[in-house]
Amino acid sequence: MFTGLSAFPLTPLRDDAVDEAAYVGLIERLVAAGVDSITALGSTGSYMYLDRAERRRVAELAVRSAGDVPVMVGIGALRTSLVQRLADDAQEAGASAVLLAPVSYQKLTDDEVFGLFEDVTAGLSVPLVVYDNPGTTHVTFTDELYARIAALPHVASIKIPGVPPVPDAAAERVQSIRAHLPDTVSIGVSGDPFAAVGLGAGCDVWYSVIGGTLPDEALAISRPALSGDREAARAASLRLDRLWRLFREFGSLRVTAAIAEHLGLVAPDSLPRPVRGLDPSTRAEVARIADALHIAR
Amino acid sequence: MFTGLSAFPLTPLRDDAVDEAAYVGLIERLVAAGVDSITALGSTGSYMYLDRAERRRVAELAVRSAGDVPVMVGIGALRTSLVQRLADDAQEAGASAVLLAPVSYQKLTDDEVFGLFEDVTAGLSVPLVVYDNPGTTHVTFTDELYARIAALPHVASIKIPGVPPVPDAAAERVQSIRAHLPDTVSIGVSGDPFAAVGLGAGCDVWYSVIGGTLPDEALAISRPALSGDREAARAASLRLDRLWRLFREFGSLRVTAAIAEHLGLVAPDSLPRPVRGLDPSTRAEVARIADALHIAR
Repeated sequence: MFTGLSAFPLTPLRDDAVDEAAYVGLIERLVAAGVDSITALGSTGSYMYLDRAERRRVAELAVRSAGDVPVMVGIGALRTSLVQRLADDAQEAGASAVLLAPVSYQKLTDDEVFGLFEDVTAGLSVPLVVYDNPGTTHVTFTDELYARIAALPHVASIKIPGVPPVPDAAAERVQSIRAHLPDTVSIGVSGDPFAAVGLGAGCDVWYSVIGGTLPDEALAISRPALSGDREAARAASLRLDRLWRLFREFGSLRVTAAIAEHLGLVAPDSLPRPVRGLDPSTRAEVARIADALHIAR
Repeated sequence: MFTGLSAFPLTPLRDDAVDEAAYVGLIERLVAAGVDSITALGSTGSYMYLDRAERRRVAELAVRSAGDVPVMVGIGALRTSLVQRLADDAQEAGASAVLLAPVSYQKLTDDEVFGLFEDVTAGLSVPLVVYDNPGTTHVTFTDELYARIAALPHVASIKIPGVPPVPDAAAERVQSIRAHLPDTVSIGVSGDPFAAVGLGAGCDVWYSVIGGTLPDEALAISRPALSGDREAARAASLRLDRLWRLFREFGSLRVTAAIAEHLGLVAPDSLPRPVRGLDPSTRAEVARIADALHIAR
């Protein structure tokens, strides 16, 4: 489960409620494309904006619609006891694994971050993915903190925020992380523009934003990368370079939502306020890029 | 209401539930000391760690226990619609004003921050304090954004994160902010070590962490500062300098909770996990400082 392409679907809203029909459509699209796993309620799935009941329902819909594809569910929240309840909910919904980012309001010490993972893993019966996403959590992991947490029971994978853009430096970085981890813990790259380089550098899995909405385009990167054809992976990633540039400028969530809205996969204005969609001119640019790439529903 | 000392009480937990008796005790202590207002559920009151029902209950307890002292209630949350519900709850509980920080998970643009305040103020019937707290919200306000938001209905005060430490520079900074605001909007300093300088520089109110737990010590700073005796205010602040140093190193929340626990105002381990209290040696230092300052319950 912790190899290949893990696709992170959006959780589209409509009039401030989860658009269940559109969500099921997104999951079915991922299953049809043949992704290796689905991660519901990641950052792309707006988990931090949804309440416990909404998150439980989304987890149930994802598992029910995913067939044989394993579903991981994001359980991050600010308070440890809520994370524990969300873990229970996810497991009851049938999640194959859970994903935990140490989200913060008060800045957390390393010991507090470790304590969170210790408290949560103590009650788990499924594997856990450590979600290192400093841009949203404002927690910076050291390799030593990775090592402490990876030694806890149930920890199966670490989602790292990216790798250096040069292949040799990326390989060195991944080897350095791997030296701190048990052999049983996989390393997953995130930051979609880094995926081809990261998988080529030895990452086992790509935790992918774009894979949740454009799974064919993501598989065109992950499959050659993981079968050793780095050149084909690089070319498939380069093909999406205009999207990666928009990701860097406007954030992957807003751009991906604009793509999904353009393709009619979700209704307009699908993001949780106060987050808003792209301005009309950038939205038009997204549409032009999608059309030029022959991306269709 | 938006002048003088606004005291921010802790919301103490006990076994992961709000310790209501201890909370009421904190509020009554503030009333007895004669603070000018009480802000329940600020950052010091751990608002982001509590659920809607807990926050509603805390707001009710604060208003009920505060007698004639006006109570402001923090309504920040990640999703606009939840902020709106929390505003309704606070107003039904009898809050005299609400306090709103634009907390973020996805990084917000200035237009999104403005949109949040626009959406929330549209449904208010009490005044609103804009809560600028970049260390926890990861939103950076410009003076132009202050101006746009201050022009919205119901906006009554802005809580700024601090001022330059030198009096002349502080006065210049406060004047520059004031030039962007309507005359009806007060400016409040936060960051307790900056309070004496900030009030001397023309701030109208001190939104105070320490004032929620040690109101006498805070009033010893705010009263002379606001009556023009800057030297006495400076001396009263300097007296707490060892506390301010610990605030900078460990965060004001952990240090203030340690003081309240040392004084027996709240039970041990009063912070919401994953946030933990100070380590034993720093906790012992806090106790020594409190004793040396003759701080008592």
